[in-house]
Amino acid sequence: MLNVGIVGVGYWGPNIVRNFSANKNTNVLMVADLKQDRLDLIESNYPTVETTRDVKDIINHPKIDAVAICTPVFTHYEIAKAALEAGKHILIEKPMTSTSAQSEELINLAEQKNLTIMVDHTFLFTGAVRKIKEMVDGGEIGDIYYFDSVRVNLGLFQHDINVIWDLAPHDISIMDFIIPHKAEAVSATGADHVGRGLEDVAYMTVYYPNNIIAHIHVNWLSPVKIRQTLIGGSRQMIVWDDNSPSEKIKIYDKGIEVIKTQDQIYNTLIQYRTGDMISPNIPPSEALAIEMAHFVDCVTNGKKPISDGHLGHAVVKILESSEKSIKNRGKEILL
Amino acid sequence: MLNVGIVGVGYWGPNIVRNFSANKNTNVLMVADLKQDRLDLIESNYPTVETTRDVKDIINHPKIDAVAICTPVFTHYEIAKAALEAGKHILIEKPMTSTSAQSEELINLAEQKNLTIMVDHTFLFTGAVRKIKEMVDGGEIGDIYYFDSVRVNLGLFQHDINVIWDLAPHDISIMDFIIPHKAEAVSATGADHVGRGLEDVAYMTVYYPNNIIAHIHVNWLSPVKIRQTLIGGSRQMIVWDDNSPSEKIKIYDKGIEVIKTQDQIYNTLIQYRTGDMISPNIPPSEALAIEMAHFVDCVTNGKKPISDGHLGHAVVKILESSEKSIKNRGKEILL
Amino acid sequence: MLNVGIVGVGYWGPNIVRNFSANKNTNVLMVADLKQDRLDLIESNYPTVETTRDVKDIINHPKIDAVAICTPVFTHYEIAKAALEAGKHILIEKPMTSTSAQSEELINLAEQKNLTIMVDHTFLFTGAVRKIKEMVDGGEIGDIYYFDSVRVNLGLFQHDINVIWDLAPHDISIMDFIIPHKAEAVSATGADHVGRGLEDVAYMTVYYPNNIIAHIHVNWLSPVKIRQTLIGGSRQMIVWDDNSPSEKIKIYDKGIEVIKTQDQIYNTLIQYRTGDMISPNIPPSEALAIEMAHFVDCVTNGKKPISDGHLGHAVVKILESSEKSIKNRGKEILL
Amino acid sequence: MLNVGIVGVGYWGPNIVRNFSANKNTNVLMVADLKQDRLDLIESNYPTVETTRDVKDIINHPKIDAVAICTPVFTHYEIAKAALEAGKHILIEKPMTSTSAQSEELINLAEQKNLTIMVDHTFLFTGAVRKIKEMVDGGEIGDIYYFDSVRVNLGLFQHDINVIWDLAPHDISIMDFIIPHKAEAVSATGADHVGRGLEDVAYMTVYYPNNIIAHIHVNWLSPVKIRQTLIGGSRQMIVWDDNSPSEKIKIYDKGIEVIKTQDQIYNTLIQYRTGDMISPNIPPSEALAIEMAHFVDCVTNGKKPISDGHLGHAVVKILESSEKSIKNRGKEILL
Repeated sequence: MLNVGIVGVGYWGPNIVRNFSANKNTNVLMVADLKQDRLDLIESNYPTVETTRDVKDIINHPKIDAVAICTPVFTHYEIAKAALEAGKHILIEKPMTSTSAQSEELINLAEQKNLTIMVDHTFLFTGAVRKIKEMVDGGEIGDIYYFDSVRVNLGLFQHDINVIWDLAPHDISIMDFIIPHKAEAVSATGADHVGRGLEDVAYMTVYYPNNIIAHIHVNWLSPVKIRQTLIGGSRQMIVWDDNSPSEKIKIYDKGIEVIKTQDQIYNTLIQYRTGDMISPNIPPSEALAIEMAHFVDCVTNGKKPISDGHLGHAVVKILESSEKSIKNRGKEILL
Repeated sequence: MLNVGIVGVGYWGPNIVRNFSANKNTNVLMVADLKQDRLDLIESNYPTVETTRDVKDIINHPKIDAVAICTPVFTHYEIAKAALEAGKHILIEKPMTSTSAQSEELINLAEQKNLTIMVDHTFLFTGAVRKIKEMVDGGEIGDIYYFDSVRVNLGLFQHDINVIWDLAPHDISIMDFIIPHKAEAVSATGADHVGRGLEDVAYMTVYYPNNIIAHIHVNWLSPVKIRQTLIGGSRQMIVWDDNSPSEKIKIYDKGIEVIKTQDQIYNTLIQYRTGDMISPNIPPSEALAIEMAHFVDCVTNGKKPISDGHLGHAVVKILESSEKSIKNRGKEILL
Repeated sequence: MLNVGIVGVGYWGPNIVRNFSANKNTNVLMVADLKQDRLDLIESNYPTVETTRDVKDIINHPKIDAVAICTPVFTHYEIAKAALEAGKHILIEKPMTSTSAQSEELINLAEQKNLTIMVDHTFLFTGAVRKIKEMVDGGEIGDIYYFDSVRVNLGLFQHDINVIWDLAPHDISIMDFIIPHKAEAVSATGADHVGRGLEDVAYMTVYYPNNIIAHIHVNWLSPVKIRQTLIGGSRQMIVWDDNSPSEKIKIYDKGIEVIKTQDQIYNTLIQYRTGDMISPNIPPSEALAIEMAHFVDCVTNGKKPISDGHLGHAVVKILESSEKSIKNRGKEILL
Repeated sequence: MLNVGIVGVGYWGPNIVRNFSANKNTNVLMVADLKQDRLDLIESNYPTVETTRDVKDIINHPKIDAVAICTPVFTHYEIAKAALEAGKHILIEKPMTSTSAQSEELINLAEQKNLTIMVDHTFLFTGAVRKIKEMVDGGEIGDIYYFDSVRVNLGLFQHDINVIWDLAPHDISIMDFIIPHKAEAVSATGADHVGRGLEDVAYMTVYYPNNIIAHIHVNWLSPVKIRQTLIGGSRQMIVWDDNSPSEKIKIYDKGIEVIKTQDQIYNTLIQYRTGDMISPNIPPSEALAIEMAHFVDCVTNGKKPISDGHLGHAVVKILESSEKSIKNRGKEILL
């Protein structure tokens, strides 16, 4: 039985409380929040859970094995550091930290102390992403050519971060999970239409080895909600429409074949291939429940989480570099 | 009556021949092509039209007032120059030329000779684009925030040009037509998956004054065909789906309102506005027929074509600069 | 303050409990169900509500003003009758009763006792249906030509009723609410593929005066979920796609104009009209909360509910007649 | 080489002329039409084809082997009869005749004279219908449960026929082709909103053996164009959207399993099955070219056309019976 403390029960935290409460192998001991009304809500729904307005009560709690950090990003580093130093495993909301230097420090600290860091990139635990990962790993897609993701809507403008830090962590984590290479560089562009210095529209290109290119379009000013990812491969291509109530993933047996004959040194022949489209049945499941079970499994059995600190750090590094590139109008930033 | 000569009747030329033949104010005198079988086809369909394998027969023809140039891009400049020097007005296939220096030279030549240059950016004459233009000019959209265009499909790889030169002229011309400012700079990225040095996937950001940002995604390796443009404005927003058989244009009465009170210097208040969506009825019409009539009107009455040499040049300049930016991984290129 | 008792907290009842509890003008005094585990659930969520396994405790409760009946259809009549005889107002789950004779008896009883009957046709309280009703009543649609509704999916087969009794009450209640005439006759067809004598696919035509025709297609064996209603009028036409996450309602300014000149007695001239499409913004709202408020208003102020016993009876009458018509392969049954 | 004469070159006839001209095994000798301007058009496009305003010139032409009849329906019978009596094979526009008695007479005449009748139900030669037929015949769909077809749009009102005779021949021919049983009876409903006694909205149910039910919805007053067919089977289910530019056919591995145990005599257990969806690649092809080749093959080699007189007659019989049923408000008409 894993004893858990949860810090922050604003927007997302209650889902973590609910899922850790429902998991048979975990026990929610304590919940912390600065606001009493949020704690009152937890108390009325989970009468056995202790609550506190002081995060130290969780950090110093002798029976707590793991701490889930669901507070605003700028507080992640300090709470996580304290928790690790107190010997707790941590589950940390995405994005992992405000800077990549902070992420790196946390990773090192966890490694020294032999503790688990998992970042809450929930999308990696959805049926859709697991199916895509399975197909890429199984070779069905062939070599990946590109990864193109659009995540736009008339969005809730955030007070202190731009649209990249708000929306792109989803796409970056999925991209990093699926593409079997390490990102090399970033070029990003964007614009702010409110005059706060915080972009509300942004475009990021991420360069990978082998001419793999990834691109993410995030936008808080779109009249329609689009959640569409195209993945092109040498054998098959995927269209993932996360908005669609059914048939979210479509796999197209389409592609090109490049033929280079001796005679045609200067004239590469490109042939098209068009076959069936398959939309695999993806049984419904709650991603967060699967994620919690994975966290318990990793902590208990010393396994590496699929969304570990390194993935969390890679996401922050790309966010940070993209922001730098945007300020320099697309200038390449090496990762 | 305007006497016309047409150079090149490969893929697009026959449409020009057909439309000039159908126009009551134009008369197709002669058609030139290097391939006899293409000329045979013209002869059988238009028995009264003369044909030739030598473009000079058109250039030097004393009765021809205007020359339509529908040959491959790399030949545009020379033929156009010769035609202008011979005192002919020209209609030139898009993109206008292979380099912006060539476009500039043609513009100057035409101005000296008081001749008309029109570039065949047919999209500007479609009902959809004219409707969008009308709404932007009428103030219904408010200040433009962004222009985002996606033009992807499993495409015909071109032998000698990349996907930008093939597909983006459409989007760039539309963008240039609609946005009432001059583009300032470009940042572009892309990748080649065939090994020819010619990108098959590319992304272009175009910077305009007033924080207006434009972005174009072109891709020859997409399993699905997408032709979608989002235009965000301060008053209304447009979604244009050119693939849709009906309701191509949807205008959303959606947006944000930015409120800055004295008390809230540090905390800009952003409110959302959501109203009806309208899809205006756009009567069907053949864009090319309207374009031909516009060409005749401009030549005859000395008017400036909406797709004149300057627009054609702007397109080439952006293509050229984007290509340069791609080679430098997103580096900003000033226009 | 209206004191309410709720009978039946299986599938739908808990929503009624939740909404009556949330309503400031109602007070849930007691809940009855045959199953103790369902009552336990209510007790844990609503500690102040009394529970019982004997419906008589609610019927005879001196302080209860109104009874909500959320039990299986075949029990509605007896419970409703007892409640009315005990002087309680009733809110009754749809369909109102198993036979139209029962509905009629309940209506008469309520009228004698001056009590309110409201049937829980929740769809009538959705933003979409209220918008359609508003447009029809306001004359924007003109004369109604037809009402065509499709409600199909791979459905939960019911044990004791066919697909018509399961799905069609929605469509019939909406149709009856919107069409400003009384249905005259029914012709229905259907088939059973399981061998239970209960149709899983069915089609119903309902005849109204003035050549208005309504048609409903319900199907438990469709691989895809469709919820689409077309309403044709002499001035405008409506497409309502209840599956769509946004733009559920589209109003087309389309139609025909019939011209009869003296010369053309035998040759009526029909002209087409095509204008804009508008999708009105429908703010989200919980239909059930609005419905509960309406019930309280009707009971308190002696108003007639929009889904009163007469509407409930009309729905049952059409269901009953359709079933009879199906058994006679489409034979017209007068209503 | 089959020598062909074509009667009627109004709306559809020119397509027949074009396809017979393009077919290497056929030779268009003569074309007849009452209107000189239609004949002029044929002459200018096909200089070697003879034209006439007298259909007898084709009927009596000694070299003509086959006559294609593309005139209005009410003339089919007489022209076809004359052609058959003159020893010509016939290709006849759909619907075959105005009455089923006429169809029957033509079938008998052709059988006596050992001549071929083919009815131009072009849809049977499309890739989509051939794919569906192949799957049904191959057992992939299992037992057919239902066939449901919707064909609606803001349509061209016909002068002398109702919407059933105009649109339903497509659906009926496809249904008859695909369902491996003989239709038994019809129940149909409809309404006329123009006051001509000709229905503009209609619904037809066709009963087959084994509880197979087919339903067709045709409508000239729909604001949107829908061409959707659902086919439910015991093993798989098909959705065919003929409007869709791609992925017209989707095959769902979905269904129910009915379990009847000894203990549960009264309580049939129904389980749901949900698997992948496949959209097979259907290479583009011109249905009419394939149909012409099939006609030549049948005439030359004495084969039975897939759309022979019997299929044509079955379509007319269902149209005729549906019309009768509509006038009797859904009354079952045995076929």
